[in-house]
Order: sequence, then C-alpha cells, then structure tokens
Amino acid sequence: MTTPALDALTGTFKRLFHYNHLAAIAGWDQAAMMPTNGNEARAAAMAELQVLMHQTLTDPKLPALLETAQQEPLTAADTASLAEMHREWRAVNRLPQHLVEAQSLASARCEHAWRTQRKANDWKGFLENFREVVSLARQEATLLADATGSTRYEALMDKFELGMSERTISALFDETKIWLPDLITRVIDKQQHEPVVAAVGPFAVDKQRALGVEVMGLLGFDFAGGRLDISTHPFCGGVPQDVRITTRYSEASFAPSLMGIIHETGHARYEQSLPRATLHLPVGRARSMGIHESQSLSFEMQLARNPAFVQLISPLVIKHLGDQAAFAAPNLARMVTRVHCGTIRVDADELTYPAHVILRFEIERALIEGDIEADDIPQLWASKMKDYLGVDVAGDSANGCLQDIHWPAGMFGYFPSYTLGAMYAAQFFASIRTLHPDLDTHIAHGNLSPVMQWLDTHIWSQACRWSTHELVTRATGEPLNAAHFRKHLESRYLGA
Amino acid sequence: MTTPALDALTGTFKRLFHYNHLAAIAGWDQAAMMPTNGNEARAAAMAELQVLMHQTLTDPKLPALLETAQQEPLTAADTASLAEMHREWRAVNRLPQHLVEAQSLASARCEHAWRTQRKANDWKGFLENFREVVSLARQEATLLADATGSTRYEALMDKFELGMSERTISALFDETKIWLPDLITRVIDKQQHEPVVAAVGPFAVDKQRALGVEVMGLLGFDFAGGRLDISTHPFCGGVPQDVRITTRYSEASFAPSLMGIIHETGHARYEQSLPRATLHLPVGRARSMGIHESQSLSFEMQLARNPAFVQLISPLVIKHLGDQAAFAAPNLARMVTRVHCGTIRVDADELTYPAHVILRFEIERALIEGDIEADDIPQLWASKMKDYLGVDVAGDSANGCLQDIHWPAGMFGYFPSYTLGAMYAAQFFASIRTLHPDLDTHIAHGNLSPVMQWLDTHIWSQACRWSTHELVTRATGEPLNAAHFRKHLESRYLGA
Repeated sequence: MTTPALDALTGTFKRLFHYNHLAAIAGWDQAAMMPTNGNEARAAAMAELQVLMHQTLTDPKLPALLETAQQEPLTAADTASLAEMHREWRAVNRLPQHLVEAQSLASARCEHAWRTQRKANDWKGFLENFREVVSLARQEATLLADATGSTRYEALMDKFELGMSERTISALFDETKIWLPDLITRVIDKQQHEPVVAAVGPFAVDKQRALGVEVMGLLGFDFAGGRLDISTHPFCGGVPQDVRITTRYSEASFAPSLMGIIHETGHARYEQSLPRATLHLPVGRARSMGIHESQSLSFEMQLARNPAFVQLISPLVIKHLGDQAAFAAPNLARMVTRVHCGTIRVDADELTYPAHVILRFEIERALIEGDIEADDIPQLWASKMKDYLGVDVAGDSANGCLQDIHWPAGMFGYFPSYTLGAMYAAQFFASIRTLHPDLDTHIAHGNLSPVMQWLDTHIWSQACRWSTHELVTRATGEPLNAAHFRKHLESRYLGA
Repeated sequence: MTTPALDALTGTFKRLFHYNHLAAIAGWDQAAMMPTNGNEARAAAMAELQVLMHQTLTDPKLPALLETAQQEPLTAADTASLAEMHREWRAVNRLPQHLVEAQSLASARCEHAWRTQRKANDWKGFLENFREVVSLARQEATLLADATGSTRYEALMDKFELGMSERTISALFDETKIWLPDLITRVIDKQQHEPVVAAVGPFAVDKQRALGVEVMGLLGFDFAGGRLDISTHPFCGGVPQDVRITTRYSEASFAPSLMGIIHETGHARYEQSLPRATLHLPVGRARSMGIHESQSLSFEMQLARNPAFVQLISPLVIKHLGDQAAFAAPNLARMVTRVHCGTIRVDADELTYPAHVILRFEIERALIEGDIEADDIPQLWASKMKDYLGVDVAGDSANGCLQDIHWPAGMFGYFPSYTLGAMYAAQFFASIRTLHPDLDTHIAHGNLSPVMQWLDTHIWSQACRWSTHELVTRATGEPLNAAHFRKHLESRYLGA
C-alpha cells in the first residue's frame, strides 16, 4: 500500500517547513536583535524567501498531486494531514495573483504611513490610503464568499479562525453585550472599596528579567528549546523546536512585563509541545489564532491572575524585586485584576477587553459587508466606545480607531480571535476544575500539572488533527459555550 | 548597448545574495543565540538552503549565459564582475557531484568524531576517518590541477587565496624559516629583562564588554550596522549591511578578549566598507582569505599592539576595569607583545605564529602531493615543532596535530592565509608610514584616520575589482614582499 502522491506532497511541505524556519528566525532577529541599518537588506532577503515559498505553493504540479493523493489508501491521520495540506494550498492559490499583489502594495503603503499618522491623529491622511485597502479586502471577501457560499466577512475570518461561522460569533458577542456592561459597572463599584497599594519602582530591567525567567521555568518553558528577549512589540516567534518569546520592560512598572511574559509563555508551551513527528506538516501546527490565544490567556488570565497563582509567585516577586507592602499576595492579586475603562485595547484588563473586540468586530463586519464606508468609522467608534465602556474618544483617532495595526495591514476578521481565545480558555479551565475541584490548592502549592497535563492531552498534542469545533467538543464535551467565560468573570471579579 | 545575458546573471547572483543573507544570519544565530535543542531543526533548514543555493549555481542555463555575456558590450567593471561570477560558478561546477557529496559526508563524519577524539588525544581513532578525507582531497586536487595546470596543492590553495602560486608561498616561507627562529630566540632573551606586571582579575564580563564596545567605536565600527555578541569560537559573520562579530570572555584575563574584539573589528570594517552598489555581486565581496586576514591583523597586530595605540586605550582600560599598576601604558604594551613558544596556534603571539603556519603548510602540502601519508603526521609534527619552536609535543596529539578544525573539515590550503595576512598587513603599514612619518603621534592622539582612510581607499573600496596581486601592487607599489614583515617584527620586538 504505497502513497506516492502523499509522499511527494510531504516532501514539498517539508521543504516549506525548512524555508519557514529561516523566515521565522530572520523575523525574530529583525524584531529583537537587528541594528537599524540592517533593515533594507533584511527586508529584501525575506521578500526573496517569500517569493520562493509562494512559488513552491503555486507549483502547477500540486493540484494533480492533491487530487491523486485523495484516491490513495490513506489512514485517518493521513486524511487529516491531506486536508490541512489542501487548506494551505487553497489559501495561497484561491486568489488571483494581481489581487494579492495589489493588496500587498496597498497594505504596505497604508501601514507605513499609519505609523506616523497615528501619532499625528491624522485620520484624513490615513483615509486616503485606507480606502484602497478596504476596497481590495472587499474584492477578496467577495471572491472567497462566492467560492464557498459563506458571507463575505466570514470568508475573511476563516483565514484566522477556520470554520467559525459569523452567526455563532454574532450570537456570542450579542449575548456578551447584554451582560458585560453591567458587570463592568458593578466590578468598578466594588473595587472602589478595595484599595491597592501601589508598587514603588524603579525596577531594574535585569531583575525583572530574572523574575520573568523564573516564572517561565515554573510554567514549564523549555529553555533548551527557546529564549526570552526584548522587542518593541512582544511576540512569540521562532519555531516549535526553538521558540523565541519577547517582552518589553518599563522600569516604572513590573506587572505588565511579567504578565506579558506569562502570556507569551502560554503561546510558547503550545508550540514547544506540538507533536515532533508531524511538525513539518500543516496538520502538525497550532490549530488556529483563537486556540493559540486560548493558550496564552489560559496562562495570563486563567492562571496568572488567579489568587492561588499570585500566592505562589509573590515570594518570587519579593526575591527579585525586594520586599515591599505591595508584593503581599492579596495586594498583588488585586493589582493584576484592577478594572478600568480605558481607550487602548492592548492596555485593557480581562473584563473590559471583550468590549474593545466586539466594537471592532461590529465595525469591520459592517465595513466588509458594505453597510458602512471607511469614512464612517471615527463616528461609529466614538459612539460605541461611549455605549460599551462609557469612554469619550470623539476626535481622538490616535487613541481611537487608529490605535491598531490590523486594519492598515489589511487584516480584517482577526479581532474576534482574541475574545474567542478568552472564551475557550474559560471553558477549558471549567473542565479542568471539574476534574480537579481542589485545583487552586494545587496551584498555590506549585503543582501546575493538572493544568499542564490537561492542556497537553487535549490541545497541544492534537495540533491540527481536528477542526476547532471538534477539538473543543472532544476536550470539554460541548462546543464553544460563552457561559463559562461569564461565570469565570463573575466568580473572579464579584466573588459570585 | 544592452547586456541581457549579464543582466540575467546579475539577477541570479542577486537571488543568491539574498539566500546567503539568510544563511549568514541563521549561522550567526546558531553560534551566538540558539539554545542547544534547536540544532537539529536549524541544521536541516540550513541544509535545505544549501541545496537551493547549489541548485541555483548549477542551473544548466548558466554556462550559456556566462558564454554569451562575454560577447556583450562590457565596461571594464562589467568584465571584472563577469570574471568573478565565472569564478564562483566554476568553484561549484568544476567537481563531479558524487565527489562533492562524498567529501561532505567524510568531512562531517571526521569533524564530528574529532571533537571528542581531540580531547581524548586519540590519533589512531581519528586516522580511521581522516584517511578518507585525505584521499578525497587528493582526488579533488588532482582533478583541479589537471584542469588548470597548477600543482595539486596550489589548486586547493586557490580556493582561499586566488592566484597565489605555490612557488611564491614556498619562497616566502623558506626565507622566513631562515630568520624567524633566531629572531624568536633573541626576543625571548631580551624580554627576560623586561618584566611585566600581571593584571589582577577577576574582570566582570559586562565591564569587559563595555571596554570592547568603546574600543570598537574608536576603531570606527558602525553599531547601526552591526553587533557584538558572545560565541564559543569568535568570528565575524552576518552580512556587510549588518555585521555580527563575536568574542568570548574569561573573567581571569581581559587582554585576549579585547585583542580578539579588535581582530574581529578589522574584519568587520572591511565588510562594512565594501561598496554598497555591488554588494549583491561576486565582484563586490572581500578579495580573499589572506586579504581579509590582513585587515584583522592590521587592527590587532599593526595597530593594537603598537605602543602608541596602547597609550591611547590605556585610559579606557582603567575607566572600565579600574586603576591598577598593570594598566599603565608601557606595561600594557609589554603585556600584549610578550613572546612565548607554545603548542597551540590560536594562542600564539605575533612572532611565533608564522612558525605554526609554516609547519602546517609543509605538512599539508606534502600530504596532498602524496609525499607523505596521514600516518606520518604526528612524527613530522613533533619534529618540526622541535625544530621551529623548540617545543616538545611528542605523543601529545591533542596539543599537536589534532588541535585545528581545518584538516578534519577537509580544508587544505587554508593555513597560509593567516601568515599571508600578517605579511600583507605589514606591507600596508609600511606604505602608510611612508605617507605619514608621524603616524604614531596621530595614533597616540586618537587620530586613526591616516590608517582608516588608506585601508578604505586601497583595500575596502576595491572589493574584488582586482586580483590579489594587482590589489597589493596598486596599493603599495610592489607585489607581496615579506621584508616588510621582518622589518616590522625586528622594529617592534628588538627596537631595531
């Protein structure tokens, strides 16, 4: 029983895997190590590699191989692998080359100008480039939607969260909009009577780093297969065998960096724990953006903001940053769960974050579907910020609709992944708590294995073997259910 | 007047230039950043890139393009560029693929085993793999020599030092052998009456690094286009637009690392100063191994061990490492010019280094020409070490013929480059001193521009525009002349 077509495809994807390794390391270096004047040569070299990867995936021999492989005697695992190869091939081949190139040019121009326009609060200037980005994204969405019968927005979202229907997401977010604003108000009221002792800096970078490294070790990060470095925008990069996470430090404040490191460690452990035997295949990768985010948020939100975990790391904070009143566990726990209605998504707390995402989801969906035009965004943004968070950003695009890179970069349909991740994480932890009713005792005593083993068994080791829907259902016994997220927030923030 | 064939070749070499960028950065990362368990995946990705580069250079379209381009209306610069393309093409295409693969396998096996065999002083075990490496190198040498009419050893040396004849090198080294041993004896006698105050450590790594960075700045290293990091074996890597040099630190001793940094900075400035317009072409690269080494040794030996330069950096040593008697300029100058007959090439001083090289040259030449067999090496090594340096290494292969990576890696013909570099450097500085009789005054006052401008004008900016012979003759008015080296050593070490 031979499978020559599948074997040939495996060879091609292994080659792509090696090219991707080089792209990942060069990309990490660019963000974390490269001196400024190295950028032009690096960009050219990376573009050459992109051309090569694109040529490899648009090789005219591939369609016949993909077709033939389906007729070969495949195991269930082979079939899953072939499906993921097909998906990756389709993602590159389903759009006409002229559209892909036009999008690449338009978003590069828009993103480049955005970097200065954002600081200058220059919405009008931004709009000139952005209209073209929107127009091309609509063309892409229409082409994809016509091919699959989905809605246009769903067709774009599918790139990041495969198989998630717009109807499901709308229902989840519409429901969340009902209970979230009231919950935020009640929590803010409650927290007014729970003062937090502020930590007194400065906190030396090398000491913050040592603290971060020790907490990474506690969370099982494998330093023989990864590193922690510094970059302007923190990320988890590299390759599964050599995961590179980054953070940024402020001497004035240690918690954001520590929580950021824990967040990236969640991404990292997912990558580090993917099954070694299939790393070179599309089926061997992390499942989706939402599932990836569920891992970082399992670490950052479910675990690290849990008072039991804070109790565990409070002595480490004291060990590295010195003893002060603010570092007592109950105070630290309050510090990292403080709720505040702000303007900036990336600075948002666990409770207000979904409001930022829902606002963006509603606007980008209407934009792609053609219900609104790019010109309408600032007014809509201001009105929704007022409605959902009571925050006034009228006229302040810098802290409003210009704050994120996603839209200038042409990434529509990505934002929901953040809140899907939070919801998945809450659902996973509900399952873990059912299995381990005494979970917090384990955590407080430094035994994180109930969490890590569950994630490894149900998520990390499964890679892309199942669709997201199947993965979640197999892991928790039910499809995505936002009730777990609501219950988690009410329990943590109201003690309900 | 169009040159379509030359243009097509330029496109191919630009693609190779981009691939090479990725290989260089991945290689630097592997040595300086990569965690241990990342190695297997990295090796596979880099091997894939090597396959791609080899495919690109063995593309069956290239021979016709190289042929056609010669008939096109070329400028003198185009002609030089085409010649270097041809040379690079030939280097990859002139050997049968089965030989290249056999060499690659044999040297990988030999080098891998050597890493433990060296420590275990296991010459017999080493010999089992090494015989095959030698046999294949002889096959290569015979094929190349038959094609060009050169001797077999010369044919191998040509890979590293293009156009250098074995006769020239033999004459230079035979002459050096006449005066060097006596000079070494006289210098050691003289230095017995010139005590050196030892520096008292430990020297913290971060302070050594700060000192190194400041001296790099003094030497004109462009930190916007490069970095200094740590690796087990120091090197100058990266790409001309982003040069990565490395060093290693010992807390017990600061001078080796400082001198190592200065050495790599010499390599780095050559790379950083290559003309930007032709970086993507073979004609735009550094000329040869010997010329590259002449730049590192211009910095490390000609400049950094010059008492005028020591006077300049003595305050920096004190600033970073604290004030102690050893750091007074006259003592520092003695410290870095101390001569000692030792067993290890990489630890050798300026004066005894050529003896280590000549010994290796004589043995590897005889080995390739078939005058001796691999089995004869230890006995020959011991006898020559006794003759040239009065050192007894009989029976100690670990500190004798097993100490270098070159032979297990199949690199025969490389060693002469080190001493050629020293000779070129001495000749260059003789020219600079003729132009600037007050050079040492400039140096002592921190004005290094007479040196840097001369090197930039005559070496760095010329890249591969001329053959090594032409480059040296145009720069100094005469071909390589070892008398300058001898004079430099006598002047520095005997005050003659």
